[in-house]
Amino acid sequence: MKTPTIAWSRMGSAPPPSVIANLMTAALRTPGMLSLAAGFTDNTVLPTEAVTAAATRLLSQEPDRAYLQYGTNPGREGLRAGLLAHLRSYPGECAANMVPDDCVITNGSQQALYISVQVLCDPGDIVFVESPSYFVFLELLRGLGVEPRGIPTTAEGEADPAAFAERLDEMRKTGELARVKLIYLMGYHANPSGSSIREETKRALGNVLNRLPRPLPVIEDGAYRDLYFESPHAAPSILSLREFADLPRLYAGTLTKPFATGLKVGYAVMPQTAWRERLLRIKAHQDFGTAHFNQAILENIVAEGTFHAFLQSVRPHYAAKMRALEDALRSEGLPEMGWQWESPGGGLLLWVRTPEKFDTRMGRAFHQKCLSEKVLYVPGDVCFAENAPANCLRLSTGNLPIKGIREGVRRLARAARAVFV
Amino acid sequence: MKTPTIAWSRMGSAPPPSVIANLMTAALRTPGMLSLAAGFTDNTVLPTEAVTAAATRLLSQEPDRAYLQYGTNPGREGLRAGLLAHLRSYPGECAANMVPDDCVITNGSQQALYISVQVLCDPGDIVFVESPSYFVFLELLRGLGVEPRGIPTTAEGEADPAAFAERLDEMRKTGELARVKLIYLMGYHANPSGSSIREETKRALGNVLNRLPRPLPVIEDGAYRDLYFESPHAAPSILSLREFADLPRLYAGTLTKPFATGLKVGYAVMPQTAWRERLLRIKAHQDFGTAHFNQAILENIVAEGTFHAFLQSVRPHYAAKMRALEDALRSEGLPEMGWQWESPGGGLLLWVRTPEKFDTRMGRAFHQKCLSEKVLYVPGDVCFAENAPANCLRLSTGNLPIKGIREGVRRLARAARAVFV
Repeated sequence: MKTPTIAWSRMGSAPPPSVIANLMTAALRTPGMLSLAAGFTDNTVLPTEAVTAAATRLLSQEPDRAYLQYGTNPGREGLRAGLLAHLRSYPGECAANMVPDDCVITNGSQQALYISVQVLCDPGDIVFVESPSYFVFLELLRGLGVEPRGIPTTAEGEADPAAFAERLDEMRKTGELARVKLIYLMGYHANPSGSSIREETKRALGNVLNRLPRPLPVIEDGAYRDLYFESPHAAPSILSLREFADLPRLYAGTLTKPFATGLKVGYAVMPQTAWRERLLRIKAHQDFGTAHFNQAILENIVAEGTFHAFLQSVRPHYAAKMRALEDALRSEGLPEMGWQWESPGGGLLLWVRTPEKFDTRMGRAFHQKCLSEKVLYVPGDVCFAENAPANCLRLSTGNLPIKGIREGVRRLARAARAVFV
Repeated sequence: MKTPTIAWSRMGSAPPPSVIANLMTAALRTPGMLSLAAGFTDNTVLPTEAVTAAATRLLSQEPDRAYLQYGTNPGREGLRAGLLAHLRSYPGECAANMVPDDCVITNGSQQALYISVQVLCDPGDIVFVESPSYFVFLELLRGLGVEPRGIPTTAEGEADPAAFAERLDEMRKTGELARVKLIYLMGYHANPSGSSIREETKRALGNVLNRLPRPLPVIEDGAYRDLYFESPHAAPSILSLREFADLPRLYAGTLTKPFATGLKVGYAVMPQTAWRERLLRIKAHQDFGTAHFNQAILENIVAEGTFHAFLQSVRPHYAAKMRALEDALRSEGLPEMGWQWESPGGGLLLWVRTPEKFDTRMGRAFHQKCLSEKVLYVPGDVCFAENAPANCLRLSTGNLPIKGIREGVRRLARAARAVFV
């Protein structure tokens, strides 16, 4: 067979993806490899019985069988009502801007991000993200020809509203501001930093955007919000802060990251009709509605209280795993080697800074040594839009049991000692 | 709240969608409305028990619970192997070019179409489709800024390879051929025509493409192939015809259109590595893998023989519904009013041509009358890339019971008599 030559589009001609995807594939295929990289949740607590029970309840509760038929493009109204009630249970979340009509069920929250970038950004446009930010979002932007830029941070690593205002003002002077189309924030136990944005910082960011000549759309991605350890983070979302009331905004969430990732059902709450209508238009071309069965299962699970009870049960589980990870890092003497981190209040991810001489990037000595020790981490540099530091890494508690986390950290520490001592 | 002004992208600025989506919404909301429009399958035969049984089997067959975890981007290998075995059971399908590595599981077959257009076409490019063709594909193209054109047809309404070759040659002379990036065919019981492409015609189309200066990628969409009435259509797919061996090609199919649309799992068989890799790259940005639970359910259902047995049972059901539709059209005297159609060998759709004076388009007298009679059809003109005739319509047997089909046709006939007699 000849291999035909194809005239690819601009998107088809884009450079190959980062090697991060290969990391996950390697983790799944190499025997004995321990993955502190994969952003998976913990298989041992996946709610298989609860999902089967919900499927069984649907047999009698929805005898018209319509849950196995196509649904509507925006998704099941009962599910939207249920998840909004859940969202309103968080501190400071007001009921305003949270009616089912403002909400769209998506194929994972990822789809809400993807389509929003499609309707807001042309190739060459700019999107500001936190530093660091969710690397799949960075890849998504680049795949669509959009340029990510980093919101400046304080010395403590939090978004710095004053420095951001300055940067935007400089861009206004050079005319570059016209190409900025979107701000992307992860307010809660973020990927990869594990940290949350304080209410005062979030409000200050809103003020920066309000003072611009043209209001900039904002996405807040709350993917890890439900996975807090002790108590929910105190800051309300952009849906409830008055500083964001006049900005185009989308709050993205997921019903399945904290519950069962294999169901892949996300949502977008977006009070502005114009943005929502455009998102729905493109969604109609991509799938005309998220898998109806999965929506029905989740609506049932939320309505029956199973979702709430499940979250209550997994929070201490993930809290214990995070403690085990931090304890292991300490008992292996990594702080003495200059490894530093903030204890997260939730989520699955620990963000570690190493000394400057300690290069964690893909292909460098430490990374290679970790591969031969059979342990995987995410090199932190891939999580930056620009000016990526070489000395940070992301560790995940989701995938491995506590014993595996400890052994993974022992391997990390062996690699660190071999390369840097 | 101020309504903020947003600087939309080119995609965000695209004109609003056709009103077809509203038809479906109207069908779902208007009491007493009978829909001969919606491309739904029949709720009464949806396999709710079979799906719950599969979910129950997974509890014991996959005790590691991983089916509720993220899967891989290309999808479950066991599902790919199972569906390829199913595909190979069709007449003339050879095993070559059908190994699991050539196959990608997608979020409905729609996602395979969408991403393929993204990687092959830039705004302003041209895609050739049959006349008529699947209207959601036409909308998808326009949404991405791509221009659909119609493959010329014979007097019998089949694709005309000789006329197509001529048209492409004219485009070569004007330089327009360089903008043609893809050919889209529906080989089996097509939407909306209900007809299949004969083997000899398909081979001739392959020859036309082979003679071009640059090989053109081809998609064959087999969405309705499994829903044959008596026996499978005789023509092999583009995967097994030597005329397509040197062309970039993708065969798109679905495991859920013929089984349970609410599960939304499609697939693409694409022997060329370069196209497949690019599709996977973009898929990683859109969802990084189709819902794993749904894949596991379907893998189980295919492996246990449930899929095969279900298809055996629904084929006579849909055949009977099609007979009922045709009988009703005849007994209401519509052939005497000049309505003409070919009996399809499978699928859910009947394509009807009316006399030239008989305008079926949206908003015209007949369509308005049908709305007041509370019956919906799809005006045929929306299914054409160009030169759309005003006198055709698509009727679907999927949604209504036989009694409803008969009543729907009575209403259509009343409207026809009121407007045209």
